[in-house]
Amino acid sequence: MLVPMNGKIMLVGIGPGQPEMITPQAREAIGRAGVIIGHPDTLALIAMLTQGKELLAVTSNPLERSRLALEKAQTGATAAIVSNGDPGIYAIAATFFGYLKEHNLSADVEVVPGINLALYAAARIGAPLGGDFAAISLTDQCAPWETIQKRITSAAEADFVIALFNPLGRLGPERLKEALAIIGRFRRPNTPAGLLSQAATHNENILITTMAQIETEKLAADTLIIIGNSQTYTLDGRMVTPRPYLPGAGY
Amino acid sequence: MLVPMNGKIMLVGIGPGQPEMITPQAREAIGRAGVIIGHPDTLALIAMLTQGKELLAVTSNPLERSRLALEKAQTGATAAIVSNGDPGIYAIAATFFGYLKEHNLSADVEVVPGINLALYAAARIGAPLGGDFAAISLTDQCAPWETIQKRITSAAEADFVIALFNPLGRLGPERLKEALAIIGRFRRPNTPAGLLSQAATHNENILITTMAQIETEKLAADTLIIIGNSQTYTLDGRMVTPRPYLPGAGY
Repeated sequence: MLVPMNGKIMLVGIGPGQPEMITPQAREAIGRAGVIIGHPDTLALIAMLTQGKELLAVTSNPLERSRLALEKAQTGATAAIVSNGDPGIYAIAATFFGYLKEHNLSADVEVVPGINLALYAAARIGAPLGGDFAAISLTDQCAPWETIQKRITSAAEADFVIALFNPLGRLGPERLKEALAIIGRFRRPNTPAGLLSQAATHNENILITTMAQIETEKLAADTLIIIGNSQTYTLDGRMVTPRPYLPGAGY
Repeated sequence: MLVPMNGKIMLVGIGPGQPEMITPQAREAIGRAGVIIGHPDTLALIAMLTQGKELLAVTSNPLERSRLALEKAQTGATAAIVSNGDPGIYAIAATFFGYLKEHNLSADVEVVPGINLALYAAARIGAPLGGDFAAISLTDQCAPWETIQKRITSAAEADFVIALFNPLGRLGPERLKEALAIIGRFRRPNTPAGLLSQAATHNENILITTMAQIETEKLAADTLIIIGNSQTYTLDGRMVTPRPYLPGAGY
């Protein structure tokens, strides 16, 4: 069923939450939209940008946000689905395009990037992502746990810096413990680890510790964990993955 | 030698280049700085923000930018080193902290994140980074080629989406060809690949193709290449890595 769309849908990243980290492009996109769809917590962060607009606060999963946005676009509206961080990283964009595919729909879509949690946390922690890195989400809502285990193993073995998203989920810290045990087969216990939770709020918590000392039982669900590679060091309370200029190299 | 620093150094990401993608936070940081240090091309992108400031255009490597910023901070200045994209991803931040470490210096440093090339390109291409992904730079200025080869192999084997930065370098496309051959051992030739070059300019070039059809001889040096995982598909001229909600999963 190919439904004609007169409207437009924008998938807009608002960054970690502070107004000063919303790009002018995202601000402008929200300004153009007549309908703003998002989690109520996300809508609260941009209340100053949405006065007079139709707001649809959706606590359920992104599929429902996608459905609503398309319903609005079919009536000719310009709808924005707003997302914390960046819409393309463990967020709405893949879900939205998947919804289009599944329902055989075509639409005018614009994706507006935002500062995602990894970039924000890295800046606050120092320069932990200075080298090659792997982003892995521990939630198995999107990939089977066996696939995730294999990714953790490969990333650890090949000495990638590893950014672990969604470390807890509904089951608690069991999988995080397993993930850290896998990484521990390839890295020394005192490998630096940087943790950031409650990003961009007054309760933001930054911890630079070692892999062995991560207290998995005490983590907040929104923690991003960055595990260093074999070269990562700490300096003056920061975590840094080196980016040396090797003599003789020149590619 | 621990030199007292009266000034401050900010490492500021300006995003891909358009003024509307510079965050208000980065804009404010540049406003606070008396001295702005960067590649001349980067300085040109923010000329509207730097009137009346001391500008130091440095074409040589980031070590020289770091040295200059510290020299200025020692005289009490607030210096900003500006970087395209994000300072923490294959950019100045790791180099700068490494310079501090090597010279046993301590300084007041602030890192200001920006939309990096991967987030920007992903938004333009669709949602190619929708799942777990690995970021790999092909330049061996920073890691030995053997290490990079191992990372490519592991990332391909574990079905990560792979973002290849700096695909050419001074040697031409030989290593890129080798990288694609490695990935080709684990993925089908028609795996979607998204390429973006000349980001955020009038000459921006976006190509969605397949891994086998990447024309390595014709690439611009600033191309970002995103190779899909086994699930990545194309839809209406976009490239999407799915983020399904698996039945029965619930972590």
